Amino acid sequence: MDANPILAEAVRGNWVENRHRGAFIIVDADGGVIASGGDVARPIFPRSAIKSMQALAIFDRHAVDRFHHSAEELALACASHHGEDEHVGSVAHFLERMGLSVADLECGAHMPTNGKARAALRAAGTAPSALHNNCSGKHSGMLSVALAMGVPTQGYVEREHDVQKAVRAAVEYVIGEDLTEDRCGTDGCSIPTWAAPLRAWALGFARMATGKGLDAGHAAGAQKLFDAATSHPHLVAGTGHLDTLVMQAFKGRLMQKGGAEGVQCGAIRDKGWGYALKCDDGNMAASHAMVAGLLLKYAEPDAAQQEVLEQFAHQPTRNVRGAIVGEMRAVAF
Amino acid sequence: MDANPILAEAVRGNWVENRHRGAFIIVDADGGVIASGGDVARPIFPRSAIKSMQALAIFDRHAVDRFHHSAEELALACASHHGEDEHVGSVAHFLERMGLSVADLECGAHMPTNGKARAALRAAGTAPSALHNNCSGKHSGMLSVALAMGVPTQGYVEREHDVQKAVRAAVEYVIGEDLTEDRCGTDGCSIPTWAAPLRAWALGFARMATGKGLDAGHAAGAQKLFDAATSHPHLVAGTGHLDTLVMQAFKGRLMQKGGAEGVQCGAIRDKGWGYALKCDDGNMAASHAMVAGLLLKYAEPDAAQQEVLEQFAHQPTRNVRGAIVGEMRAVAF
Repeated sequence: MDANPILAEAVRGNWVENRHRGAFIIVDADGGVIASGGDVARPIFPRSAIKSMQALAIFDRHAVDRFHHSAEELALACASHHGEDEHVGSVAHFLERMGLSVADLECGAHMPTNGKARAALRAAGTAPSALHNNCSGKHSGMLSVALAMGVPTQGYVEREHDVQKAVRAAVEYVIGEDLTEDRCGTDGCSIPTWAAPLRAWALGFARMATGKGLDAGHAAGAQKLFDAATSHPHLVAGTGHLDTLVMQAFKGRLMQKGGAEGVQCGAIRDKGWGYALKCDDGNMAASHAMVAGLLLKYAEPDAAQQEVLEQFAHQPTRNVRGAIVGEMRAVAF
Repeated sequence: MDANPILAEAVRGNWVENRHRGAFIIVDADGGVIASGGDVARPIFPRSAIKSMQALAIFDRHAVDRFHHSAEELALACASHHGEDEHVGSVAHFLERMGLSVADLECGAHMPTNGKARAALRAAGTAPSALHNNCSGKHSGMLSVALAMGVPTQGYVEREHDVQKAVRAAVEYVIGEDLTEDRCGTDGCSIPTWAAPLRAWALGFARMATGKGLDAGHAAGAQKLFDAATSHPHLVAGTGHLDTLVMQAFKGRLMQKGGAEGVQCGAIRDKGWGYALKCDDGNMAASHAMVAGLLLKYAEPDAAQQEVLEQFAHQPTRNVRGAIVGEMRAVAF
């Protein structure tokens, strides 16, 4: 099998220091390929990039009829949030509204992604809780599914729990592929992650963006989730993050979500296209350069949107004293 | 140009999540190739992996005759230390002995690499100083060169300063190649870094290990530096780091040093071989797996040495709750 193409590179001074290979694909909801590069048939773990797809279980299992999730709660269900006050407070409220608390979360605790939030916790001498975990909104959404299904919440992260079966079924339905035990792992937040071909993830996003190929319930749920995420981009990630800045700039035209280990997925909603991208080596900054390159070329950005994307297509790198000594940049788009 | 081979991969569950390509070469002091893979003619930035080579300027410019550097000071000149108490105290003493202080260091300040040292600084509410910079030992060595040469120490990090000219000349002499302005960048600690073919770095290490191809002064200096580093491995890196653990285990048989962005260089001293390795994408953990794979195959490790190398050839990865969910592993060695 040929190597995937180089899609980003890191330059130091006047010389290329690192090369980042990857594959990408943009498709319409019928699976028609708009653009692609590299091996798009290779199954990849989508990680957090498909939280919006996993959140379809909220609609599938009628949790939404019981809890009437707000747009903010749906955005948090799609989020890898940065543990800023707004995120932590909103997730705590979401849980409280369901009669649950932080003790019901099984994602584990980690320090907030946001630097100021980390410093504030340290200054207060407080350990992070599961609320600070970037996945706590997704887990709250999953807990709402457990309650709506009338099953015990305990163990909801396990592969054989009814909640994860519901999530798996929703994802399989949208991408039109089986998720199989021979290509499965455990995500950072302890739920299963399933590998599927890159082109299947892109197709799923195109279907969610258009409703094509989906029944009315899934189509409506997908639209509500994308509307929620794109109208509350700060809840989906956090201050200064690509997902937040790009969705703010595109004002609803674009659903964009990163996942660990260099995954980027989303939909150019007004075109009805889904896209998926994976950096072979898992480097996040490189995957940011790649998706910025992709969106600059294919998302028809206006001047303000271009400016935001250029920050990620050409990321300056600095040395210890703060001098710019190179850049991470998109190539081949 | 063909892609370099995959030399490490990250597995999650039962599926490969990330692939890391790279090139490596092992040579003897005459340039005879023991083993190689990938494009070893491509110039790469060696970064901190060649601090021992840069430290030859201490001998070249007779700084050693004036300051009679201790083995500990020579080890620190070769080091990317972790900012533990022993490192910071030893560098402060080294500077004081020359009538200098932290104010003369131009490397900039960063938090210690060592987690406990970081926590201690935070608990004390103290900002890190340039002494904590992993390169402060190398910079102290460079300051000794400036004093011995009778030139101003100020600006010693600049490309046109006599100290950097001396460092460049020492490195060019040992690798037998010109370092040229068309492939130069600035390192994290503000000194120049020069790209040269991977095979040239390996040859330089083989020459330093054997003295072959070097005049008597350089050969003696190289031996002193390798002896210093291999008998004080904790000073060269720090608690738990590959360089420290591997050099401790090999008890003088092996000089090993990593550099930023996935570079690993060293010498299997008793065989007279030098080696150099670069992970294309700059991932450090992957480069650790790669060099461990290389040394397992070619350095004839005993059982204890194998055990240390296996920790890096197969590195478990954990999720937020601490469960092992995969591994980074060496392949193709």
